[in-house]
Amino acid sequence: MTKEFRTLADPETVRETIADLDLGGGTERVDLRAARGRVLAERIDAEIDVPGFDRAAMDGYAVQASDTVGAGEADPTVLDLAGTVHAGENPDVSVEPGTCVEISTGAVMPPGADAVVVVERTDEIDGDEIGGNDDDSDDTAIEIRTAVAPSENVMLAGADIAAGARAIGPGTRLTPREIGLLSALGVDEVPFRTRPRVGIISTGDELVPPGEPLDSERGEIYDVNTNTIAAGVEAAGGEAVVYPHAGDDFDAMEDLLRQAADECDLVLSSGSTSASAVDVIYRVIEERGELLLHGVSVKPGKPMLVGRIDQHDADDDAEAAATDDSSDETAQSAYIGLPGYPVSALTIFRVFVAPAIRAAAGQPEPATATVDGELIAKQRHDEGRLRLLSVGLIEDADGNTLVYPVDKGSGATTSLVDADGVVEIAPDTDYLAAGESVTVQLFDPDVRPPNLLAVGEADPALTELLDALDRPRFLPLGSREGARRLRNGVPDIAVVAGPTDREVEAVELGGWSREWGFVVPEGNPYDLADLADLVDNDIAFVNRDTTSGLRTSLSNSLAALADKRGVSRHSLVESIHGFEATVKGVESPARRVADGRADAGLGLRTTAAKLGLDFVSLGDQPVRLLGNPDRIEKDAFDTLRDALATLPEDCASLAGYRFD
Amino acid sequence: MTKEFRTLADPETVRETIADLDLGGGTERVDLRAARGRVLAERIDAEIDVPGFDRAAMDGYAVQASDTVGAGEADPTVLDLAGTVHAGENPDVSVEPGTCVEISTGAVMPPGADAVVVVERTDEIDGDEIGGNDDDSDDTAIEIRTAVAPSENVMLAGADIAAGARAIGPGTRLTPREIGLLSALGVDEVPFRTRPRVGIISTGDELVPPGEPLDSERGEIYDVNTNTIAAGVEAAGGEAVVYPHAGDDFDAMEDLLRQAADECDLVLSSGSTSASAVDVIYRVIEERGELLLHGVSVKPGKPMLVGRIDQHDADDDAEAAATDDSSDETAQSAYIGLPGYPVSALTIFRVFVAPAIRAAAGQPEPATATVDGELIAKQRHDEGRLRLLSVGLIEDADGNTLVYPVDKGSGATTSLVDADGVVEIAPDTDYLAAGESVTVQLFDPDVRPPNLLAVGEADPALTELLDALDRPRFLPLGSREGARRLRNGVPDIAVVAGPTDREVEAVELGGWSREWGFVVPEGNPYDLADLADLVDNDIAFVNRDTTSGLRTSLSNSLAALADKRGVSRHSLVESIHGFEATVKGVESPARRVADGRADAGLGLRTTAAKLGLDFVSLGDQPVRLLGNPDRIEKDAFDTLRDALATLPEDCASLAGYRFD
Repeated sequence: MTKEFRTLADPETVRETIADLDLGGGTERVDLRAARGRVLAERIDAEIDVPGFDRAAMDGYAVQASDTVGAGEADPTVLDLAGTVHAGENPDVSVEPGTCVEISTGAVMPPGADAVVVVERTDEIDGDEIGGNDDDSDDTAIEIRTAVAPSENVMLAGADIAAGARAIGPGTRLTPREIGLLSALGVDEVPFRTRPRVGIISTGDELVPPGEPLDSERGEIYDVNTNTIAAGVEAAGGEAVVYPHAGDDFDAMEDLLRQAADECDLVLSSGSTSASAVDVIYRVIEERGELLLHGVSVKPGKPMLVGRIDQHDADDDAEAAATDDSSDETAQSAYIGLPGYPVSALTIFRVFVAPAIRAAAGQPEPATATVDGELIAKQRHDEGRLRLLSVGLIEDADGNTLVYPVDKGSGATTSLVDADGVVEIAPDTDYLAAGESVTVQLFDPDVRPPNLLAVGEADPALTELLDALDRPRFLPLGSREGARRLRNGVPDIAVVAGPTDREVEAVELGGWSREWGFVVPEGNPYDLADLADLVDNDIAFVNRDTTSGLRTSLSNSLAALADKRGVSRHSLVESIHGFEATVKGVESPARRVADGRADAGLGLRTTAAKLGLDFVSLGDQPVRLLGNPDRIEKDAFDTLRDALATLPEDCASLAGYRFD
Repeated sequence: MTKEFRTLADPETVRETIADLDLGGGTERVDLRAARGRVLAERIDAEIDVPGFDRAAMDGYAVQASDTVGAGEADPTVLDLAGTVHAGENPDVSVEPGTCVEISTGAVMPPGADAVVVVERTDEIDGDEIGGNDDDSDDTAIEIRTAVAPSENVMLAGADIAAGARAIGPGTRLTPREIGLLSALGVDEVPFRTRPRVGIISTGDELVPPGEPLDSERGEIYDVNTNTIAAGVEAAGGEAVVYPHAGDDFDAMEDLLRQAADECDLVLSSGSTSASAVDVIYRVIEERGELLLHGVSVKPGKPMLVGRIDQHDADDDAEAAATDDSSDETAQSAYIGLPGYPVSALTIFRVFVAPAIRAAAGQPEPATATVDGELIAKQRHDEGRLRLLSVGLIEDADGNTLVYPVDKGSGATTSLVDADGVVEIAPDTDYLAAGESVTVQLFDPDVRPPNLLAVGEADPALTELLDALDRPRFLPLGSREGARRLRNGVPDIAVVAGPTDREVEAVELGGWSREWGFVVPEGNPYDLADLADLVDNDIAFVNRDTTSGLRTSLSNSLAALADKRGVSRHSLVESIHGFEATVKGVESPARRVADGRADAGLGLRTTAAKLGLDFVSLGDQPVRLLGNPDRIEKDAFDTLRDALATLPEDCASLAGYRFD
């Protein structure tokens, strides 16, 4: 077999190679109660008539239709009442000419009867009225005020579905409706396509399962791909089998991969970005299986493996018969290696692997999973391979879908939730222009764009505000980036804290003020009282990055202090130990203080209170919500205004906030 | 409290009344592995920085950015190699000015380093080249051919998400993507909205659970609503609790309803069409709870109850304090009584109950669940209430959706699968004209119309043909109705067996012939040889209804025999015992013979063979597929032609068939 690993396979080749893998697909019988969403393996024919008997379809009187010929309101026919039949009873009476039987909806038609007169077109008359003796029920008679045809108001046996008829075809996905029809047929166990068993192996010594302690000093991170891909496998109709991580050396990896191959139809490895783990897997597949493809010409996702792994059972045979043709029949399981970065792994899984799992499980492709929209920002493309660009969606005031790239690095796990789908950009495209119409493949047919997209400064009161909205999305990129993106027309609102250096055309939606300063250890051991103390003492400080409004306020205060002292701002900065040690989150400097890794951190009074730390106030700064003038008619702004009105109450526990 | 039961409640009132019921909605913690599709009860904030350390984003060399100033292809900088850091290792080396450290993607940045130069912009040079002693690795140096800025190719601690930041908002439905972000945060247990527990009680003594034996003589039928509604409850995000049926008397029903009230947030009763069971429930709710609504002005679904049931726990208190205000606080569960007929029950459930369950479970409303289409057939409407008309969908050759009413009685369970959704017809509408544009509420957002709609004669070869198609729908209404509907432009194809009395404009798609005659007991105990024997002997016969092509062929043969004998056809019919005893399915007469309920039945040779019976041939009749000329360009017809080509093979086991 010739293998070409030097060139990356094109996406169509990858699809075909994966489609040719055998992912199982047998049949199993499952209780009807667990049948929802499963796919019928075989046609089901009715084994019984439904209903199983001629059944009264209305409350009334069972009659012989011929007795009612000519009956009408003006000229009723009178029939003797011979008895009664209720639903669930075997009739103990028959209908002879001139008689009738009271009958309930659902009851068995008594022998002799062939039609039902509805009760509304009848009247009961007792024996006296028709000249009988006294009020013995035997003498009751019924006045029939309408004629009925044979079978009228009767559902004949088998009229719903007859024994032997085709009920539900193979390949049907069962919803409550099909479950209803199968119940009517008395079926309580159904043959389904077996769910392909998909083994998931996490590689990379640095990965730790969520819930266990993490040693960041050693560079450990939580394993993201195992749970993500397992959920994806289940959504596609497969059964996910998660294998514990077993070390990155050859023997351990070989054992793990072949155990998974023994137990599963498909083995997915995923997790590590480390070259060593990938190299080990590569060697195992080459030596203990068959490598079909190495690398796909797609971004993200280039490092992808497709192949097969020998199962243990077949191993001895295969070795014994190595020179024999029968070795071609070595039992193997399918293998696909996903890239390590979560966004890449999930994208490759969704595009190439999930369709194969759905096919093996007999699951239909999701009905609607694309949305057309207008690209807001120009997107350059200088790759020689197909780009699957992660994008977010937002609607304008007219309900049109706008599309913007989500450009966090592929190592970021937050881009998993900040994006709604991908746009395919062909290899020969130079760029997509702003305003261009694009088709977005949603990550999931149920994805709905956020109602409100906000970009800017993270803030505890904003967090409360977001909780009061329906499907908001907030990108905590800092005040400066919020204002910049608003100028470019991307978000619905920018959240801007502190002084702004450049104006942006926007609708002021309101805001609040927050008290900022230094978060210090409990008891303020360095007796920090103001900014001058930070400059003049040897205090380990932690700053925020330059996108933050807190950083801007600090810089302005430093400039004022420099003016007052008649020195350069730079000289003050130089004398602050850790001024360039910036961290990302609104709580991050305070958390370094809490950890004992710093003596003071730039932050908010409310954060100090939350973490049980002390606080040195440097002032209040405004936080403003700036609305995109083109979007202000969106319904979400009404909800936002309502939420702003109750925000002071929701934020009663936040220290240092003013809402006036 | 004033209750108005005389007038039916309008749909909006019913919606509001149900929305006011308390369906639970607490919080429970669930393993992240079981989190897919669940709805977050609370906001989740990051408890840790992700990544938890400054992390190399590329393979290369960790450096002090200031050492690379001015470096380029033409003018490289050379740095001493001080060591190596892999992913998952605690760095045991630091980067001093003039040195660098080899680093892998994902590894911890060593102390002193603030940037990474990617390996592609470097070259390793050994000690000799720079004048050192020998090839001791301590002397290895690295040529750096590019300048890097501080933080370049480094993902700073917290850059993905910082500790304290808002990660996922309350009310978010978890997909694999959110599961990925939560994994990155180390979260392994998540607070979810509790799924409302919904008790399902089946009423009606005539109902038997699927899988158990059925006594049709007593009018028993299988319980359809329990499984259907349970599947619907689960699809809406509730937990279905099925209660065994316990008899229709007051005490048994009261015990069952109050046990369910004790254990569930909502009790749904459903199942019986019998007035007595409904009356008992009505009384229980009035005496042991509170009836809020009785009847909704919707068709189907008029008989609907909404109320509350007292829980047992609260009972004693309530009786003791009957005159006290505190009796208002009796613990109660919500109660909704659904109509008995399956289509009505599921429609009312879908329209009124499922939204309330979704709201309590925090599940979003399904994204897209409507389709616009053109009504093919005029629909009269003379009701004074809102009609939810069950409709089927089919596409024309241009992909437009066509809509036709599904007009089986509401007692039919097959209409569950023969319809795709409902069209609302307002109370004041007289009729919808053919060609009118209507909006169809799909039963499920995943509903897709069939690819091919066939109407006509049921036939075993047709069954095989349908199995070879993708999403066909066949309505077995007989040859005559197939031809009639094709004239009205509804189906894609009509399936017509035997002679036709009226021509229909159609495209002949092919067909086959089948041998028809009498199915008789094994050994043919009456020595039936031809039609004359049936006429001349006292044989219990079972016929097919007049819509069937088999019946038409039999009638033609009778006419020929009457001609030959010089008697009226009617006289021959009169002498056949059971000529008017018609049954519905293609196998139904034969099954009566197999059961011993008849001596001969109209049917096919292949049915006799299947059931182990004997057969008396009366000839062959053609079965023809007639294509709708307006639809013939649909892709499904290509699939149909392919399937027809292989049909002779697929039908090799059918006796009496000819495909030529």
